[in-house]
Amino acid sequence: MRIAASPKDSTTPIRVALLGAGTVGSQTARLLIEQSADLSARIGRPLELVGIAVLDPSVVTDPWIDKSLLTTDTKGLAQRADIVIELIGGIEPARTFVLTALTSGASVVTANKALLATHGPELYKAAADNGVDIYFEAAVGGAIPIVRPLRESLVGDRVNRVMGIVNGTTNYILDEMTTRGISFDEALKDAQSKGFAEADPTADVEGIDAAAKAAIIACLSFHTDVRLDNVRTEGISHIDAGDIAAATALHRVIKLLAVVSRTDKGITAGVYPAMIPLDHPLAAVHGSFNAVFVEAEAAQDLMFYGRGAGGAPTASAVVGDVVSEARHLAHGSLGPDIPLYANLPILSGDEDTSSFVMRVLVLDEPGVLAKVSQTFANHGISIKAVTQLQLKDKNGYNELWITTHVVSEKSVHETAEDLDNLVPIQSVISIMRIFED
Amino acid sequence: MRIAASPKDSTTPIRVALLGAGTVGSQTARLLIEQSADLSARIGRPLELVGIAVLDPSVVTDPWIDKSLLTTDTKGLAQRADIVIELIGGIEPARTFVLTALTSGASVVTANKALLATHGPELYKAAADNGVDIYFEAAVGGAIPIVRPLRESLVGDRVNRVMGIVNGTTNYILDEMTTRGISFDEALKDAQSKGFAEADPTADVEGIDAAAKAAIIACLSFHTDVRLDNVRTEGISHIDAGDIAAATALHRVIKLLAVVSRTDKGITAGVYPAMIPLDHPLAAVHGSFNAVFVEAEAAQDLMFYGRGAGGAPTASAVVGDVVSEARHLAHGSLGPDIPLYANLPILSGDEDTSSFVMRVLVLDEPGVLAKVSQTFANHGISIKAVTQLQLKDKNGYNELWITTHVVSEKSVHETAEDLDNLVPIQSVISIMRIFED
Repeated sequence: MRIAASPKDSTTPIRVALLGAGTVGSQTARLLIEQSADLSARIGRPLELVGIAVLDPSVVTDPWIDKSLLTTDTKGLAQRADIVIELIGGIEPARTFVLTALTSGASVVTANKALLATHGPELYKAAADNGVDIYFEAAVGGAIPIVRPLRESLVGDRVNRVMGIVNGTTNYILDEMTTRGISFDEALKDAQSKGFAEADPTADVEGIDAAAKAAIIACLSFHTDVRLDNVRTEGISHIDAGDIAAATALHRVIKLLAVVSRTDKGITAGVYPAMIPLDHPLAAVHGSFNAVFVEAEAAQDLMFYGRGAGGAPTASAVVGDVVSEARHLAHGSLGPDIPLYANLPILSGDEDTSSFVMRVLVLDEPGVLAKVSQTFANHGISIKAVTQLQLKDKNGYNELWITTHVVSEKSVHETAEDLDNLVPIQSVISIMRIFED
Repeated sequence: MRIAASPKDSTTPIRVALLGAGTVGSQTARLLIEQSADLSARIGRPLELVGIAVLDPSVVTDPWIDKSLLTTDTKGLAQRADIVIELIGGIEPARTFVLTALTSGASVVTANKALLATHGPELYKAAADNGVDIYFEAAVGGAIPIVRPLRESLVGDRVNRVMGIVNGTTNYILDEMTTRGISFDEALKDAQSKGFAEADPTADVEGIDAAAKAAIIACLSFHTDVRLDNVRTEGISHIDAGDIAAATALHRVIKLLAVVSRTDKGITAGVYPAMIPLDHPLAAVHGSFNAVFVEAEAAQDLMFYGRGAGGAPTASAVVGDVVSEARHLAHGSLGPDIPLYANLPILSGDEDTSSFVMRVLVLDEPGVLAKVSQTFANHGISIKAVTQLQLKDKNGYNELWITTHVVSEKSVHETAEDLDNLVPIQSVISIMRIFED
């Protein structure tokens, strides 16, 4: 049982400390300062930005930031606020500062997905133990309210699956590859030149950023301690024009999805590219937009769409959290905690099931399809459809697209290994999940 | 300043009373009973359904409802609960029961859009005055979490416009008219036969249901007291195949929208059919689905999509509210109040501005376009585009589609009156808003 602190009188300002003044921090400071009167009216008490901790005050040049607010004493600042906004990013020293704030009796607002995906459950518990709150709407989907709906709106429902396009960089790249027919490398260069991808794009294109968000979403959806390590992670750098062509021919589009789902045996969490039907609402999410599609027992299908990144959109989510917490402080109340009571078993990626599409390069000769089919049958996989590409290039080789019924990822990979050793097969080109209509 | 009640010990059940056992009430009872153990774990205290008030207990036949829970003493039940769920609908006696609950110290969860659109601000104040909460996620957009994002997530941002497809019946009808080329009457009959429209469809097709939701959304978005009477309301029963054809030719689709927006002069709230670009996220909302598109200063574009009606989806939103409030009670805290502090001026429909498309039937003779153009010019309206339908039917008449730049609705209607009196004009067939890319 957590007991909220007593409310103070309505004229005492609520003290807010900001740790970090990068892109999001700078915009957060701007909103807190420019919207100060409105925010205070919405809260019922003044909100005071008491300091901004930065490594080097001399590089902060935003005109709305009063230089006197800047400090390098991060720990000291975290201890003299009612609400600490952590926008430093990364695990350390962010984790230490967040714990310092929570144990000093301050509530925390953070956008730090890496921290939450690795240490979230400890931090949620530290908040509960210290009678304070931790909010993190901006850590998943930027400006899109998805944490709050999962944490509060759907709390009376049973979430069965969440599928998210939670990385704008990869969505932009896949969208460009699909609509403009360019290669992964060209699309990545284009994304970098437009500021949608970083110089080192690894965290985005290899799915690591999305995996952190998947872990956070899984905790909230299933009330179970799920960490980054539990998320099977695959990126998009191996996707080529042939995959895009296959998806188009199958009336689908390839999206990098973060998927968490509940099965009879336990829960799964994964990030992977998948072919989704063109009429699925996620198929219409273009460019660098993000969207999260939720399937719940009673609410059925829901989708949340918006800007998943960027300074101002992310800052909007941060300030929304600050106001929520400030209202709690003004009323002497507390926000919802994050009870991880369910302890559902977490299945490995191998145990996760799906329909798959396998692209296989085969010799153009009689009996090939029988051998391929027998190999799938040997692994207990029933084939749903086979398409043979009529283009006879590569010295008499053809390309097969084999769509399976729902099977385990393990059995598909074992089948691919056997196929690679089979004589009329040149190689298994790619294996990808395909989602039904 | 509201002061929350002290939390009781963690074994004392939180008493929930359900008023109404119709479609949504029945599903709400089911979720509360079937998910009881999970809900209690999420709350940290047992949740007990202490009674269900109905007019006639003999008609309640749901197998999950224990007959001993049923009562006809609605007021008595409302006074012996910690949380009262009002699912009676309509203004009275629902309003009296809600006020009874609030003044008895119970928090209220309601799905009653008509009540909130006419008396919401009084009820929000009554909740605040009595130190209790009122939650109403299910009143707008059924299962879609839209009230909570507006009330909490975006509270640190500035909402500029909200456009919602908030009525599934009309979206289904317009979708069928567009995709199948059938008339309004045929689509309505089809919707009725499939259970998407009621025998008396007036509230849906004339935009009244959507207008109630627009009033609720406007209060939350602009912190201003906006009621149903303030919402300019137009339905879809006048839309014909020619309107659908014009929309298609202009690369748009017609949707019935609830729109609330902030301008320099004040705020506007309206419900009307409008042509929206095919690549707008709302254009992809098909069938009886609902979606709400939010434009905020920092968060930029957001969209929330899902099931806007139906027993189980709406019950999911109701139970989500119940759990939120139960958590507050378990922690001795309070939810966010609804401060209507901004008092922004509310503009009339006439003052609202937009681009419009006017369909005009004209004599096929030289000089007609000059006369039509001059009439628009007389009202200070500049024309953006004119399309003339080459079909010479109706005894030598042609059809013009005239798209205006952004002008006031008043000036467009005055122009139409003048055109109706002009000799080469047979009639102004229709006037509709058209939204830009």
